[in-house]
Amino acid sequence: MSEPRNILIVTCHPEAQSLNHALTGHARTTLAALGHRVVESDLYAMRWKAVVDGLDFPAEPQGARLQPGAASRRATDAGRLTPDVAAEQAKLLAADAVILQFPLWWFGLPAMLKGWFDRVFSNGFAYGLTAPGARYSARYGEGRLAGKRALLSVTTGGLAPHFSARGVNGALEDLLFPVTHGTLFYTGMGVLPSFAVHAANRLPDDLFGRACEAYTQRLHGLFGDPVIPYRRQNGGDYDDNLQLLPGVAAGAQGFTAHRG
Amino acid sequence: MSEPRNILIVTCHPEAQSLNHALTGHARTTLAALGHRVVESDLYAMRWKAVVDGLDFPAEPQGARLQPGAASRRATDAGRLTPDVAAEQAKLLAADAVILQFPLWWFGLPAMLKGWFDRVFSNGFAYGLTAPGARYSARYGEGRLAGKRALLSVTTGGLAPHFSARGVNGALEDLLFPVTHGTLFYTGMGVLPSFAVHAANRLPDDLFGRACEAYTQRLHGLFGDPVIPYRRQNGGDYDDNLQLLPGVAAGAQGFTAHRG
Repeated sequence: MSEPRNILIVTCHPEAQSLNHALTGHARTTLAALGHRVVESDLYAMRWKAVVDGLDFPAEPQGARLQPGAASRRATDAGRLTPDVAAEQAKLLAADAVILQFPLWWFGLPAMLKGWFDRVFSNGFAYGLTAPGARYSARYGEGRLAGKRALLSVTTGGLAPHFSARGVNGALEDLLFPVTHGTLFYTGMGVLPSFAVHAANRLPDDLFGRACEAYTQRLHGLFGDPVIPYRRQNGGDYDDNLQLLPGVAAGAQGFTAHRG
Repeated sequence: MSEPRNILIVTCHPEAQSLNHALTGHARTTLAALGHRVVESDLYAMRWKAVVDGLDFPAEPQGARLQPGAASRRATDAGRLTPDVAAEQAKLLAADAVILQFPLWWFGLPAMLKGWFDRVFSNGFAYGLTAPGARYSARYGEGRLAGKRALLSVTTGGLAPHFSARGVNGALEDLLFPVTHGTLFYTGMGVLPSFAVHAANRLPDDLFGRACEAYTQRLHGLFGDPVIPYRRQNGGDYDDNLQLLPGVAAGAQGFTAHRG
């Protein structure tokens, strides 16, 4: 048995009988057998509100111009976030690791899961944490969620070679960079390489078994496997304008430059 | 005056008094002055339904397992998409160019706009168009929307250097690749380099004027400026597994390899 930890699994698929829910079920069983405590957010079952709007900020003056970032900051600081958002933040704070289970739709998050980030990762909670005298906020390797781990578990309708380094869709890890780097690492989390099941719409039963075996390995490595070595904003690789110093990743193109 | 064309502007921001709506207003005026016909989708004003769920497919058997891709295909082929989706598809088909105006939230689309793509870009309309005998579907430079142009107009809360080629956030055009390449070019559209207004939360009035001037230039070039030279799936650069041939973009890393 490993040391017991708290794990949050966020699942986003409209069908309870989906492959995505089956993978979450497999993760639940596997992690429980390791002695971990699993908490879940099944977004469709929760009828998660996907969109940011004025209803998120009931303390704002009626009829005033809504500036979502500023309103989010006031609500966070005053403890006046809506109960659904506050509950998800509490789950995140209690978690040692977060798994996000979703189908890749148009090479990104389904709208409902994007809306989970848009609403739960509020200003003053997940961003905007600027220390007195600091030029930039604490982010990219620092922040409220530092020390936690994150794993994306995705299903795709495409074939694996199409998502390879030179595949027509672009490399899967680069397509997910706005989430792994721009959202999760942004808040301080250590992000594991993503786990993917491809050709998910035509997965025969024996391949589901194999996918579970591969996923089991990844779940066993949730706290021990190396995370993606994204460079820390304040780790000495970026200049005062937050551009990579000339000697760092010289000649590298694309997101690779931001991995050490 | 240019030759009159049909232009669809899709705007996604919860506040009608927002910078995003002001930029859409500027585009409306500028394009009308050029003699173009502008049609708009103001997603928040329309209370656009962001999430894919069973309500999108009323013709599916009650209680049956929902497979969103397959259900989308049946609804598209049978002309049984919901009226809101069908109306957006009709606007797209009538448009010569599409402008998407949105704030960059967590380095991607706001949930509501992601949900516009998730629902409007249905199976049989935007993907899944496989000719008899073809190994792969017609996409990446071919498809139902071929010949049209697309432009992303984004506002960000960050600073321009942070979105530069070696900036800490990653290059803006790479962050948007899942939309520009994976969604718009996927359907056959020619995609212009994205237009961005940075530091949008602290934009003084004179900088709004300057942003409009820069945007005017881009709007004037909507049909004449060169598009991003993404490689066509069936243009001879990819092998049978849709990976770039060894001699193509040799040594290139990241999404750059998919630009000619």
